[in-house]
Amino acid sequence: MTLHSQSVAAQSAHRLVSDNQPSNELKSPYLIYFGDVQNVGYAKTGLGLIEWRPELCAGQMRLPNCQVDVALPEMTVEAAVRAGVRSLVIGVASAGGSIPVEWVDDLAQAARAGLDIVSGMHTRLAAFPKIIEAAQVSGARLIDVRTPPKNLAVATGVKRSGKRILTVGTDCAVGKKYTALAIEKELRARGADVDFRATGQTGIMIAGSGIVIDSVISDFLAGAAEMLSPCADQDHWDVIEGQGALSHPTYAGVSLGLLHGSQPDALVLCHDPSRAHLLGLESCGQYPVQSLTDAMHECLILARRVNPNAKFSGVAVNTSGISSSDRTRLIETYTDETGLPVADPIKDGVSAIVDNIQAEHG
Amino acid sequence: MTLHSQSVAAQSAHRLVSDNQPSNELKSPYLIYFGDVQNVGYAKTGLGLIEWRPELCAGQMRLPNCQVDVALPEMTVEAAVRAGVRSLVIGVASAGGSIPVEWVDDLAQAARAGLDIVSGMHTRLAAFPKIIEAAQVSGARLIDVRTPPKNLAVATGVKRSGKRILTVGTDCAVGKKYTALAIEKELRARGADVDFRATGQTGIMIAGSGIVIDSVISDFLAGAAEMLSPCADQDHWDVIEGQGALSHPTYAGVSLGLLHGSQPDALVLCHDPSRAHLLGLESCGQYPVQSLTDAMHECLILARRVNPNAKFSGVAVNTSGISSSDRTRLIETYTDETGLPVADPIKDGVSAIVDNIQAEHG
Repeated sequence: MTLHSQSVAAQSAHRLVSDNQPSNELKSPYLIYFGDVQNVGYAKTGLGLIEWRPELCAGQMRLPNCQVDVALPEMTVEAAVRAGVRSLVIGVASAGGSIPVEWVDDLAQAARAGLDIVSGMHTRLAAFPKIIEAAQVSGARLIDVRTPPKNLAVATGVKRSGKRILTVGTDCAVGKKYTALAIEKELRARGADVDFRATGQTGIMIAGSGIVIDSVISDFLAGAAEMLSPCADQDHWDVIEGQGALSHPTYAGVSLGLLHGSQPDALVLCHDPSRAHLLGLESCGQYPVQSLTDAMHECLILARRVNPNAKFSGVAVNTSGISSSDRTRLIETYTDETGLPVADPIKDGVSAIVDNIQAEHG
Repeated sequence: MTLHSQSVAAQSAHRLVSDNQPSNELKSPYLIYFGDVQNVGYAKTGLGLIEWRPELCAGQMRLPNCQVDVALPEMTVEAAVRAGVRSLVIGVASAGGSIPVEWVDDLAQAARAGLDIVSGMHTRLAAFPKIIEAAQVSGARLIDVRTPPKNLAVATGVKRSGKRILTVGTDCAVGKKYTALAIEKELRARGADVDFRATGQTGIMIAGSGIVIDSVISDFLAGAAEMLSPCADQDHWDVIEGQGALSHPTYAGVSLGLLHGSQPDALVLCHDPSRAHLLGLESCGQYPVQSLTDAMHECLILARRVNPNAKFSGVAVNTSGISSSDRTRLIETYTDETGLPVADPIKDGVSAIVDNIQAEHG
């Protein structure tokens, strides 16, 4: 038995970083780091941040062979510090989630200059001694947004004050984050007191805080969801980013823990009509996507356990790639089937859904 | 920022212990360690092991002021080694789950003598450098049964061969482990090919292997349940220990992940008629225990997502503290309500339930 001293020192330093911080709340403005990413699909974290929080994004930093270029000023670390930047946010969510060694010098330089380093990658920042040492010099924080808070407790089920919206889905990756952010934006534009509550890595970077709910130990799953949307003023809205789907056998447990902990008053069902089978389970043929009414029925049975007043307020559909006439017919069909406002948040916006939420819940 | 070198060394050593082991399968026979436990209620892990696997329990070891005494030979470490004992199993599950410092010398001595140390406590064995050093000398394993395997994957939902029984509950702590063990015993007595699959710490000590399902990262919850009952012969039965309750807002996510990953053919509902409100949530008054039919209805909707043939085969009730006439009436009521065999596994055994399982599933 030998000691792997490098990774041990790394783990320890990381633990101390986390323990010393009451929360992982991010400090803006941000320098978005794209490294040497070749494919815009892998840059979705940075692109999401720029789309939803442009006012927090001061600049971009890229390696010479980077193939992604967003409409932000190019900055060195020195320029970022001069511009008042407080965090370098890794804008990449690559397959596998490793941090390439080619990025380490840039990240260490930023940390040494006092910028917090914010990562949603699976590899922990603290796996790189060079980054740890740099952060120790300046006191910068190394924030792995996938690491849950240390102070989680089990759920109590006690009803909390304030009002809550949760986006749920007929499948994974059907626009639950986008829909929640669009609803938050619309409510804010109408003068409501509202927070977006993030449950995934990209959402957390956009919100500036949150909990990657599927990284939480199962025992604390619903407890983490309770912590995420604490007691609030009677008129305050939390719009909570859903995860997975109650009908998806890979992630349903996560979805149910999040549903129970969230105690939603209003639910919005997200759906992608182009899916015949659940994502990732297509080949086994055993898991067709449920009908909207079946998904809503099952969700309400479970939601009403914690909030007897839970109800669906709308349906968000992804109609990209559907012709205009088919799209109109599809939305009519879903409207007839559910009796709810149905909209594509990207094409139609969510005002009809928010109208209904406000009519039902004030 | 300083390094906590002691706990770092401890963590590292522990990680290496775990990484070097393909599984946490326990080696019998066992020496049951009760330390200085004062209350028989805290000795439930050891008592469960002695009740269900007496043939594996060679002796007990206790500190002088221990208040628990089971009908096993008193052994020193030396005597245990001479008797062929291969593991010291901590038979205590105290509140808080800490390992008292008074036990450390005994545990280190046993490890140095080559006995694996098996613990279900929340404190990791590797938090004690003295125990690590002793284990390094002999090559003994330090097995924290609460630590999940390293090689978990996300669930695939693909139907596995073999037959599966899962015990589910109207609440936590209503006899799901006991009922599963009783069914396994009855099936084995009838000559069936059967395994008990443990999902909690006491169950794992009894089974000699398993996964503490609520210690698993949420993303891998259903995947861990799939790993727990792998593909098997067509006539093989896995009897899977349930956890929590789908209606319990603290643990429902865990229960659903376990349900989906288990793909049960037969379900047995466990119920304690003395409970008016869910365990731990009595004071908020918001969570009455569901009716048997409501619990079964909701469970089947979710179970049939992964196994369209899932059905309930019986109801196990805890009738302790109920008078004989009330007991008869209660069982009649539940039989009428559910149309299933109803039995108290302790008073009646589970033969009526197993009769029904075999009639329905061969």
